[in-house]
Amino acid sequence: MISTRYLEFETCSGDTRNITEDVQRAVSGSGITAGLATIFVPGATAAIITIEYEDGLAKDLWNALERLLPQEMEYLHNLRWQDGNGHSHLRASILGPSLTVPFDTHGLMLGTWQQIVFLELDNRSRKRKVIVQMIGE
Amino acid sequence: MISTRYLEFETCSGDTRNITEDVQRAVSGSGITAGLATIFVPGATAAIITIEYEDGLAKDLWNALERLLPQEMEYLHNLRWQDGNGHSHLRASILGPSLTVPFDTHGLMLGTWQQIVFLELDNRSRKRKVIVQMIGE
Amino acid sequence: MISTRYLEFETCSGDTRNITEDVQRAVSGSGITAGLATIFVPGATAAIITIEYEDGLAKDLWNALERLLPQEMEYLHNLRWQDGNGHSHLRASILGPSLTVPFDTHGLMLGTWQQIVFLELDNRSRKRKVIVQMIGE
Repeated sequence: MISTRYLEFETCSGDTRNITEDVQRAVSGSGITAGLATIFVPGATAAIITIEYEDGLAKDLWNALERLLPQEMEYLHNLRWQDGNGHSHLRASILGPSLTVPFDTHGLMLGTWQQIVFLELDNRSRKRKVIVQMIGE
Repeated sequence: MISTRYLEFETCSGDTRNITEDVQRAVSGSGITAGLATIFVPGATAAIITIEYEDGLAKDLWNALERLLPQEMEYLHNLRWQDGNGHSHLRASILGPSLTVPFDTHGLMLGTWQQIVFLELDNRSRKRKVIVQMIGE
Repeated sequence: MISTRYLEFETCSGDTRNITEDVQRAVSGSGITAGLATIFVPGATAAIITIEYEDGLAKDLWNALERLLPQEMEYLHNLRWQDGNGHSHLRASILGPSLTVPFDTHGLMLGTWQQIVFLELDNRSRKRKVIVQMIGE
């Protein structure tokens, strides 16, 4: 059995959006009682990760991304396209667009503090559609 | 067909644990002969990766993590919670909690030197339960 | 339903290879109309990522990898094995060997500029076989 749902929302640059409950609702509503949930963001400047969702740690994460892949470096992508989001692309490629989480009748098999989080890595507001696909029985 | 198994073990901080054979045993014992194995760690301070499993490279990896995401920085997470594992969370978010590997009747389709490895990124000993879920036919 | 295909090609060190159309062809040829495509590279010195595929950004990515995980550091792996690819292993472990992408009758659910890309992280030419496994209905 397969079921596909979509989460749609608008973002601001730098958003750290907890989508755990939305994904859980997609799983519960699918009628599939055991299987694999894939969360995938179509787009080259966003990422899906897991993290303990609290303000301090979210800020730590963005600080780390800025240290490792700074916005204000000279990127060839920016020289060509003038949209200033070279850092967004690199961060997205390294963090990744997809996450797979097993679930059973009790729901997503996440750890106590482990949340599913969408990161808006782009340097502007976006309309986003995240795919949640359940495969199972 | 779906089959779910669990690997349970105790860790020390900094453990680099080769779980390839355990995952292979889970696949073999599932009765599924072709499909996808998802290895997932519930928890926000551990990761599942692939790497050539040898002592030197394991040390290189931990050195790289310390260079990129140092333990002794000032993290807001640590200021609030006083548990000193802000670096553990960031490393886990960037490396990721899940891995998907195809398999067939010959077993996991890994490269010759490519092993499945659990990283204990937390700063203390933990009891861990890793989920191995097989989907296939 | 499960279907497994293989992409085979030869690489040079530093290749950034767009395999999106090859994966799309594997999906279309599988007879599966909705499901999950897993792209997996067996091997410890290559990675599968998504990125906007354009020359400038590809160079930005390799520059970032060189800044974060430089080739010319002293790696214990190199001291022991003398093959000089310690950096290749670390980059591969952090970027990851697998990617999962949902698809339906319209094909892979990628973003407009989001391509599936193989990175040859090793320091020499290689023959590579990438696995594309479709699960669905």
